[in-house]
Amino acid sequence: MEKGSLLYTGKAKNVYTTDQTGILWVEYTNQATALNGKRKEQITNKGQLNSAISDLLFKYLTQQGIVNHYVEQISPVVQLVKQVTILPIEVVVRNYAAGHFVTKYNAPEMKHLVPSVHEFYFKDDALDDPFMNDEQIMALDIATEAELVTMRSEANRVNKLLSDIFKKIGITLIDFKLEFGYTAEQQLILADELSPDNMRLIDDVTGDSLDKDVFRKNLGDVTVGYQIVLDRLQKLFTEK
Amino acid sequence: MEKGSLLYTGKAKNVYTTDQTGILWVEYTNQATALNGKRKEQITNKGQLNSAISDLLFKYLTQQGIVNHYVEQISPVVQLVKQVTILPIEVVVRNYAAGHFVTKYNAPEMKHLVPSVHEFYFKDDALDDPFMNDEQIMALDIATEAELVTMRSEANRVNKLLSDIFKKIGITLIDFKLEFGYTAEQQLILADELSPDNMRLIDDVTGDSLDKDVFRKNLGDVTVGYQIVLDRLQKLFTEK
Ligand SMILES: Nc1ncnc2c1ncn2[C@@H]1O[C@H](COP(=O)(O)OP(=O)(O)O)[C@@H](O)[C@H]1O
Ligand SMILES: Nc1ncnc2c1ncn2[C@@H]1O[C@H](COP(=O)(O)OP(=O)(O)O)[C@@H](O)[C@H]1O
Ligand SMILES: [Mg+2]
Ligand SMILES: [Mg+2]
Repeated sequence: MEKGSLLYTGKAKNVYTTDQTGILWVEYTNQATALNGKRKEQITNKGQLNSAISDLLFKYLTQQGIVNHYVEQISPVVQLVKQVTILPIEVVVRNYAAGHFVTKYNAPEMKHLVPSVHEFYFKDDALDDPFMNDEQIMALDIATEAELVTMRSEANRVNKLLSDIFKKIGITLIDFKLEFGYTAEQQLILADELSPDNMRLIDDVTGDSLDKDVFRKNLGDVTVGYQIVLDRLQKLFTEK
Repeated sequence: MEKGSLLYTGKAKNVYTTDQTGILWVEYTNQATALNGKRKEQITNKGQLNSAISDLLFKYLTQQGIVNHYVEQISPVVQLVKQVTILPIEVVVRNYAAGHFVTKYNAPEMKHLVPSVHEFYFKDDALDDPFMNDEQIMALDIATEAELVTMRSEANRVNKLLSDIFKKIGITLIDFKLEFGYTAEQQLILADELSPDNMRLIDDVTGDSLDKDVFRKNLGDVTVGYQIVLDRLQKLFTEK
């Protein structure tokens, strides 16, 4: 597999074409951003950790029947994925109140949300990824009702699977963000990454954040938590 | 009917008890606010115009079968209404893109929204009335699914009735905000006011704003437009 030209530089990954039609080369970078890109830092090893975690989680979801873009890991920071046309909607699932959800709505910190809450954000950096409801999204032709239904139900299935797997390794999945896109065959599938950059994870024993909140809140070296997540996932999947 | 003690001072109305249980005395004030109360001004005659417009529109909705809190006008700025326990949800209905909807989502100004868009805002001044989706509202026990269903469908009926009536007098109803509350008999009904303070109205011939946008955008004396709305409504309802 040959690396082709740069398609886009994201906040945490660089995406290239390859010599195989429909397959992209995704490089996980060490860049961490907060405040929608206004704060940026390089964090040694972050790309490698996220790539390894994402690799394990996508393989697990594939096994469990979640159709997704993942192909394989070909180096510590490089993954091959099926090229999709990303829908400009970020799907957030919340199991417990945290972050914006607490400050915007004065929700009790860590309130258990039953059933879990889904939120759609319009993926548009210039607009600061505004939160939207279903009717707004449909009225502005950003997505159709069928697409919203699919994303909500896929996000739910992913939530159950990931919550279970994390529970087994002593971690609670607080919330996470997903992206979906269309394949050449017009199937809407899960894409992007599955890493602590896009999830909140709490250690059930220590109560520590094992995710990007450590960076957002300046609590120390994020990679300590990411490494714990990776080690436990590796142990779990090797034991099986 | 005797005026009792002050219950609350709102941004545009003062609400008092009366000597009759379950009936409130609502005084429309001349205060205009913008930026969620951060900008305040007194505008001569505004209270009287809003009260008169609200009176006509509530009577019309009652005639058309929309159950609501309205009882009667007893002086140029005083209305009697059934006391309800207001649900802390502001229901916004949008027929055309304007205001926040344009700036937040980069929607084309005046884009016709078909079907019309409903939005729920958590009525909480300290939080700046944050926009919420249905799942968030239910998860935080702000309202139940049944309440959201009722408010959405009532808002739809009100939208059809008001859009029609305004169309007859050469005005387009761009968007509006409603509030609902529970009566002593636990019926969820339309409450608050129906005035150009809570609607966007555009003159079909001149294209002028006949609503509070004139105040928000510092375009001149708002009461000019409010008076036009009142005059045309009065003419229409007298002709009938
Ligand atoms: N399978 C895929 N096909 C095409 N684009 C993808 C795929 N998976 C992820 N992307 C996109 O790659 C871009 C780079 O990722 P990232 O650095 O996380 O960007 P962002 O700054 O948007 O978060 C994102 O815009 C993401 O939507
Ligand atoms: N029928 C009613 N019973 C009880 N409260 C009402 C009723 N109708 C309206 N209200 C409330 O009266 C208050 C005063 O109105 P207003 O000045 O518009 O206040 P606000 O600053 O909340 O917009 C509002 O909080 C509104 O919810
Ligand atoms: Mg990203
Ligand atoms: Mg009000």
